[in-house]
Amino acid sequence: MINHDTSRTWDTIKRDTDERLAAAAKIVGSGKVVTAEDAVALLEAVIRPFDRVNIEGDNQKQADFLAQCLCAVDPAKVHDLHMVQSVLTLPEHLDVFEKGIAKKLDFSFSGPQSGRIAELLGAGKLDLGAIHTYLELYGRYFLDLTPRVALVVADAADREGNLYTGFSTEDTPTIVEATKFRQGIVIVQVNEIVDRLPRVDIPADFVDFIVTSPRPFYIEPLFTRDPAKITDARVLTAMMTIKGIYAEYGIQNLNHGVGYDTAAIELLLPTYGEELGLKGKICSNWILNPHPTLIPAIESGWVKSVHSFGGELGMERYVAARPDVFFIGPDGSMRSNRCMSQVAGHYAIDAFVGATLQIDPYGNSSTATATKVAGFGGAPNMGCDSRGRRHSTAAWLKAGAEVGSQAAAIGPDLHRGRRLVVQILNTVARIRDKKNPGQFKEIPAFVEHLDAEKLMKNANLPIEPVMIYGDDLTHIVTEQGIAYLHRCRDIEERRAAIRSVAGKTPVGLQGSEEERRRMRELGIVKTPADLGIDVATATRDRLAAKDIMELVEWSGGLYDPPAKFLPGKEDSSRR
Amino acid sequence: MINHDTSRTWDTIKRDTDERLAAAAKIVGSGKVVTAEDAVALLEAVIRPFDRVNIEGDNQKQADFLAQCLCAVDPAKVHDLHMVQSVLTLPEHLDVFEKGIAKKLDFSFSGPQSGRIAELLGAGKLDLGAIHTYLELYGRYFLDLTPRVALVVADAADREGNLYTGFSTEDTPTIVEATKFRQGIVIVQVNEIVDRLPRVDIPADFVDFIVTSPRPFYIEPLFTRDPAKITDARVLTAMMTIKGIYAEYGIQNLNHGVGYDTAAIELLLPTYGEELGLKGKICSNWILNPHPTLIPAIESGWVKSVHSFGGELGMERYVAARPDVFFIGPDGSMRSNRCMSQVAGHYAIDAFVGATLQIDPYGNSSTATATKVAGFGGAPNMGCDSRGRRHSTAAWLKAGAEVGSQAAAIGPDLHRGRRLVVQILNTVARIRDKKNPGQFKEIPAFVEHLDAEKLMKNANLPIEPVMIYGDDLTHIVTEQGIAYLHRCRDIEERRAAIRSVAGKTPVGLQGSEEERRRMRELGIVKTPADLGIDVATATRDRLAAKDIMELVEWSGGLYDPPAKFLPGKEDSSRR
Repeated sequence: MINHDTSRTWDTIKRDTDERLAAAAKIVGSGKVVTAEDAVALLEAVIRPFDRVNIEGDNQKQADFLAQCLCAVDPAKVHDLHMVQSVLTLPEHLDVFEKGIAKKLDFSFSGPQSGRIAELLGAGKLDLGAIHTYLELYGRYFLDLTPRVALVVADAADREGNLYTGFSTEDTPTIVEATKFRQGIVIVQVNEIVDRLPRVDIPADFVDFIVTSPRPFYIEPLFTRDPAKITDARVLTAMMTIKGIYAEYGIQNLNHGVGYDTAAIELLLPTYGEELGLKGKICSNWILNPHPTLIPAIESGWVKSVHSFGGELGMERYVAARPDVFFIGPDGSMRSNRCMSQVAGHYAIDAFVGATLQIDPYGNSSTATATKVAGFGGAPNMGCDSRGRRHSTAAWLKAGAEVGSQAAAIGPDLHRGRRLVVQILNTVARIRDKKNPGQFKEIPAFVEHLDAEKLMKNANLPIEPVMIYGDDLTHIVTEQGIAYLHRCRDIEERRAAIRSVAGKTPVGLQGSEEERRRMRELGIVKTPADLGIDVATATRDRLAAKDIMELVEWSGGLYDPPAKFLPGKEDSSRR
Repeated sequence: MINHDTSRTWDTIKRDTDERLAAAAKIVGSGKVVTAEDAVALLEAVIRPFDRVNIEGDNQKQADFLAQCLCAVDPAKVHDLHMVQSVLTLPEHLDVFEKGIAKKLDFSFSGPQSGRIAELLGAGKLDLGAIHTYLELYGRYFLDLTPRVALVVADAADREGNLYTGFSTEDTPTIVEATKFRQGIVIVQVNEIVDRLPRVDIPADFVDFIVTSPRPFYIEPLFTRDPAKITDARVLTAMMTIKGIYAEYGIQNLNHGVGYDTAAIELLLPTYGEELGLKGKICSNWILNPHPTLIPAIESGWVKSVHSFGGELGMERYVAARPDVFFIGPDGSMRSNRCMSQVAGHYAIDAFVGATLQIDPYGNSSTATATKVAGFGGAPNMGCDSRGRRHSTAAWLKAGAEVGSQAAAIGPDLHRGRRLVVQILNTVARIRDKKNPGQFKEIPAFVEHLDAEKLMKNANLPIEPVMIYGDDLTHIVTEQGIAYLHRCRDIEERRAAIRSVAGKTPVGLQGSEEERRRMRELGIVKTPADLGIDVATATRDRLAAKDIMELVEWSGGLYDPPAKFLPGKEDSSRR
């Protein structure tokens, strides 16, 4: 029975790696430092057909030079790669599929490339593995989607190969650990090689090759929202959220999605929040990129701590000057870490507050459209009830005690808390009509069927790309009111609550005044009037900063907005 | 309105740290290396009353010397500490409360100290913050429970302070990153200081002080189960689990809790699994400590990959010789990482399979007893439905399609998969009667009320310490059969399913033959006969290894069992 087979080899991965490294040595010599000119040849030496390959591919910073190099390899030598990377944002991330260098894709978010993914899928040039929330993809890096070769990016390296990732550390340590400890190969593009790093973020032992990029890596200011673009309608929903949710539950630990809805909340804390006497009672501990719109709240003493997924362009000096608030290293600059922020975002926060494009009659929501395979980044991880959570806070216990279906789920004897998951949206979105310049179209946000259902069919997905499921959602905030969905006893009551805040949409029009009155009596729906908010006073005047320059002023000149946000430029940030 | 207050200081934490480091320098000089004799004085210099302090405190390896030093500080100088650490396993971890050095506690698992925590709580010497699952506590390290001082442990350091954590890396990188980047102070005990480390796991920039411990750190072989102690009853439930769950759903990605139930499954893969033709179809990718009982399955070619939370004593040489399977560094030794394994355990596995002591009529389960505050470690994180998951596998989709209450949760239009959460237990536990030596008591595992309810009252907890809630559980396996709980349409059906496998317990006796027949007809309950398993053939003969020495033989002599597991010794491992 016992069968210890001494003939079997157990180091095939290592032998294969050694072969590849030997091939690389013929091109680049014995050290770790590789010239930019040799980079394509290096990739051809160490990447084999059908390999799983990661191009870092973060939400913000990009290994753009290595992405270009991968596009330049000979498809006869390197083909059918399986790309495993969190974000596809550069054209090169899809050019590799166009050229036949890559074939399969597992990812989290695609933003500007989402339409092209759908086209490549349709053309049979791309096989889609799955769409993940960030933390889920990182988990699979350690189970069944470990990269064989990782092409990552850092600010600087020293000559031994130690890395400084600094302010925008993001995904780098996670990708590198998974790859290197499965005997994979780690190649890093750096902006410069220096004698002594400000600090070491990743040890040289985790790194195989260093390439100095011809230009600094590309990075996008994704989390900057210009206060000038916040409308009165968003001030109203922000006031409702502060009074009807943050104050009601005493939300201290939270995350905001990125968008004008939540930017409005950030800018109302020092004004409306102060007026309500909420300082110290809400919004103390954040999991958040360094949002410029948080500056007034920080300066006014609202914020105890912020841990960040990534950095934000222009916020470097401000963050470094606020070490009591941000996670700052011994060198004086921040270290972000998307993985640990997502862990905290799943387990440590009491509320996730974001926005969506569509909600269906059952409360399921998605930003998917019929022809774009975009993914949701971190939203599903934070926008769900964290069922493994066991620690209590007052907010979590209160929300849990309100859950209308609790006994039907776990019986009458036990208690369980609840994370708040809040979606803010206007019942009808007013967007520019591309066909009739100068005209606007009104698009209902509450729909009978999510476009995600169509996308599933179009892209042949195994399941609809839902961002947040209805039973994970606790609150919908619209200009009509707040629906406290978790208080509903069953899905019929939830449907009635949703209809009651859905305004003049196909969903809302199926409700009635009588139903709405009943929902308000049950405390499941509250209108602005129920919350004691005079809609006429919900105006931009309340914002602590009304434009980017006022944020600069609040920061004492420490915030350096990227040029495109300065007066006269168009904000083209994508989410 | 804009209020940039130039008088406010934003670096109070850093200034405070600098003061502490200056105080330390008076004792230990300017370098990082501190003698063991100076360690207590160092702690008195850098720790202040009411600080949050972490003593590493892992599931296995322990910063035991630093724990002893903390017990030796002057309580007049250092008192009312808030301990934030994942595991309390050493007497010193509670001595600090006894002595008034510490006052508050946030933790994950306490094992042998669980009774004493309850006593200290009752005596008012300990304030309990909360009990967490591991990943949850790590998340809070980055939000509202960041340690001010961390006392951690590594194998070795070099003179600059770079650390080698090696095989048993466990929690160290997570604790160190959270502490150091909030400008906290990191003190490390090491077994030795060397000129050149096998590899650098944690960069010197993350470390303030290195203390050479007078003896190697303490570590426990928690994950070793002697096959000699696996009973025929456990072989039966293991066979049922393999055929009725693993084969039924095609489970490729999984975690096993530690215990004889799951050890039996591991040892049946090369025998019963082979007989069923399941090799390659189940159990390929694991999140698991290096369980010795997995050796026969690895040697027989069942296992593609294993990522480990921590190491396991005696498995060092075997693991190093199997780099195709484990996560091995460039130095040839494994790096474990509890945080990343838990991330994968939450998001990447299709099934978590464990054991419990008690299940209530609604399916809620707990290992809590009325007088022990023990915690559950990683179980809640893996033993829940991961609601943020968005990637599909065949197993996850199949389980999701079976969920009887799906439409009532998310409406009729959309799909959602389901992670399997399996509890294996005998309906009645036969345990030694402490009062009557040589006698046994029969303790029912299915109970009307969990002891967790009593513990909540006794320890004044805000919520019952439930390990896994009934609506997160998908399968219960007992010698009576398998209940497929997620297939139930509502909680009444779930109760009937549970009664049907609960045998002669207070819960089981409330069922009827008629009810059981109905559950079997609905496919919600399957007996061994329904699964085609002849109970008479469920014997220890089927185990691939019948004792520890056979595991050694399977390993080709690479596994070095700790002395206490060798013939003639008593297995005193605790979970």
